[in-house]
Amino acid sequence: MGLVMKNHYELVIKNCMILTMDEKNRTFERGYIGVENGIITYIGSEKVRGEEEIDGSGKVAIPGLINCHTHSPMTLFRGIAEDLPLKKWLENTIWPLEKRLRPHHVYWGALLACLEMVRTGTTCFNDQYFFMDEVARAVEKIGLRASLSWGLLELHDPERGEKELRKGVQFAEKYMKYANGRIVTKLGPHAEYSCSLEFLKRVRTEAHRLGIGIHMHLAESKYYVSEYIKRLGIHPVLSLAKINFLSHDVIVAHCIHIGDEEISTLTRYGVKVAYNPTANMKVALGIPRIVDMLKAGIIVGIGTDGPASNNSLDMFREMKQAALLQKIHYGDPTVLPARKVLRMATIDAAKVLGLEHTIGSLEVGKRADIVLVNLKGPHLTPLHDIYATLVYAASGADVDTVLVDGKIILHQGEILTVDEHQVIEKAIRASRELLEVVS
Amino acid sequence: MGLVMKNHYELVIKNCMILTMDEKNRTFERGYIGVENGIITYIGSEKVRGEEEIDGSGKVAIPGLINCHTHSPMTLFRGIAEDLPLKKWLENTIWPLEKRLRPHHVYWGALLACLEMVRTGTTCFNDQYFFMDEVARAVEKIGLRASLSWGLLELHDPERGEKELRKGVQFAEKYMKYANGRIVTKLGPHAEYSCSLEFLKRVRTEAHRLGIGIHMHLAESKYYVSEYIKRLGIHPVLSLAKINFLSHDVIVAHCIHIGDEEISTLTRYGVKVAYNPTANMKVALGIPRIVDMLKAGIIVGIGTDGPASNNSLDMFREMKQAALLQKIHYGDPTVLPARKVLRMATIDAAKVLGLEHTIGSLEVGKRADIVLVNLKGPHLTPLHDIYATLVYAASGADVDTVLVDGKIILHQGEILTVDEHQVIEKAIRASRELLEVVS
Repeated sequence: MGLVMKNHYELVIKNCMILTMDEKNRTFERGYIGVENGIITYIGSEKVRGEEEIDGSGKVAIPGLINCHTHSPMTLFRGIAEDLPLKKWLENTIWPLEKRLRPHHVYWGALLACLEMVRTGTTCFNDQYFFMDEVARAVEKIGLRASLSWGLLELHDPERGEKELRKGVQFAEKYMKYANGRIVTKLGPHAEYSCSLEFLKRVRTEAHRLGIGIHMHLAESKYYVSEYIKRLGIHPVLSLAKINFLSHDVIVAHCIHIGDEEISTLTRYGVKVAYNPTANMKVALGIPRIVDMLKAGIIVGIGTDGPASNNSLDMFREMKQAALLQKIHYGDPTVLPARKVLRMATIDAAKVLGLEHTIGSLEVGKRADIVLVNLKGPHLTPLHDIYATLVYAASGADVDTVLVDGKIILHQGEILTVDEHQVIEKAIRASRELLEVVS
Repeated sequence: MGLVMKNHYELVIKNCMILTMDEKNRTFERGYIGVENGIITYIGSEKVRGEEEIDGSGKVAIPGLINCHTHSPMTLFRGIAEDLPLKKWLENTIWPLEKRLRPHHVYWGALLACLEMVRTGTTCFNDQYFFMDEVARAVEKIGLRASLSWGLLELHDPERGEKELRKGVQFAEKYMKYANGRIVTKLGPHAEYSCSLEFLKRVRTEAHRLGIGIHMHLAESKYYVSEYIKRLGIHPVLSLAKINFLSHDVIVAHCIHIGDEEISTLTRYGVKVAYNPTANMKVALGIPRIVDMLKAGIIVGIGTDGPASNNSLDMFREMKQAALLQKIHYGDPTVLPARKVLRMATIDAAKVLGLEHTIGSLEVGKRADIVLVNLKGPHLTPLHDIYATLVYAASGADVDTVLVDGKIILHQGEILTVDEHQVIEKAIRASRELLEVVS
């Protein structure tokens, strides 16, 4: 680490506490991070200098948080039709609205989501929705990093499936290294119940061909799982294993209604899980057995799910929820301790996305995706345990500065890459347009 | 309402959305609030003027939030010994530290808590701890409102009980109208398991004599409830009813381990419940049946519990948690909708504390305890449902301005009544002192 010691860098963050989240969870009480060409080239407690310097005193540097499952453009639907049963919410509100969606709605909705993510310390997110080229443009514009997949709704209609798959593949090919490589793509079959096994086989083949991963919903609703079992006589997880769909590059969101056999199956194939505690609670579909999954060796990351079923994209709040929901579920306050939870939103999340060699920890050679959190507030005082402070007491509002690829996106609470006011106005207008059409 | 119309007031908040949280949940899209002598004397959409004016455009005015159960000085212990089982946490850490507590620790710990509460929109809190005269001083200093009780630990020792009761009664008498009436007092027997029935009878008699209420923990831990039943052959709730302890002026925190009979007993006596969802999850002691309690007609308020078992005093976050935990517990996304939750943190909470004629809603004749929340952030955009926005998307960090008794304590994010930096420094020192002694 820093073997070829220099003492001058393009950019230096100085005088801050550092949580590296590397394999050894190394920390520095008062450290320095040197950045060149978007890459971390020094990290340690030696005083190094930079052409540009960011003063980190009173702050802690952590790897940018990674949101493992969301639908960013759904910011437009936040607060519409609240506190409803899932079916009513989807059928009476969300689906009719989504039918009217046009590309510019998605662009402004995604950019609004990006603003919120930057402000709350998320530097990378795993997104599945429609018009994903617009999401890619929003991500490029604001300077974030993302893993994007076009949501493929086959609905057991082979002809429809063919069109959907073509759309998903075209998108994935075109955008797989977009925005200086900050964007990676995946294929996004919607869920086990909305896609046939035949379709999923085709998706798997295409993903192998493109060398990319898959991002889908799985076992979120008890109703759909039991309908599936009635129909096919087998649990969806086992069924996916049987068709050789499961692999280390598959990310499954939720996995609430699974048993021991399904957990060992996911483990055996190295499948990654995205855990969305707030949405699981809000939509009241059940609690996933994350502690058992972790014990079995599954890599689990944390996600907010779409902003319409949360209604926040703040990963700090989601980390707290991730810990609390497992503690109450297992009746054990010791499960999912704060440091592990922070790993699940950083390095483990990077593993979920297959990006652990690039991001997820602050180490020499990784991309400089760095978040500085202000520690001065009364609500973060006294500071006894930095992990507990970040996970249980902090919120996204404490984020001061955000860098992605070494580029400063948020500095001392100011967004530098887009006109925040304009984005908010345009998103409000997009949302109004959609609602007017429906009502 | 505003029958004797004036058009000039001491203080006017103008141009803001207003949620009154009155009986009819009246709202104003663009309203005005006139204040004189600490009292709301006008509320409506007429343009009125004030000697002093606060511009509320882009903001929503809500009644100050009321935290129904906390132990404010425990800010000093926030982040010490995290993710531990309750017994180990109490016996190895909290109790040894509490033995060393001196009045000045409590003062700075409470003032630190008050800072956090002001910043997150709480204007009144129901507190139980030791050295409560110091908490009263802190509340007076910063300008908040509070309901304070000295925690009485009899521990089944009549002699100790006598001393404790004397302390509690002396405190309650001396401070019952302290700080221009912003402080009210209660008696605070710690819990059903730490106090004998004989002692609780004496507490009840003294509370009647003083004309004040009682604030205690009840049925928080399954272990203690089952031990209690083994020892006395009866559930603590029924046992308290039998000795005529229960009444409309009793606030019981938690009530996790109670059945239908206990719920009807609490209902019959008009007992008030303080629901602390985050602490219930973090300490993993169980989930109270709040939906059933509400159906039975029990008045329930929301609390954060002590900052050492949360670790936040942010009532916005607590409101969201209050809704989510019931939704997942009942498997029903429609229970505890956002507007009801906001009532549980305002007018219902005021009823819990017996202060509903003074605070809890924005109405002519009530004390001017008002919070202005900034609605401009990307995370609060678009604004479709103000209640959902406040409960599910906002956090305490969105609070812009706070008034208590018509006096501005926080204005555009600046604390006006104490030196925030000094409080933080002193609290850090107090916490260090305590830890050094123990380690």
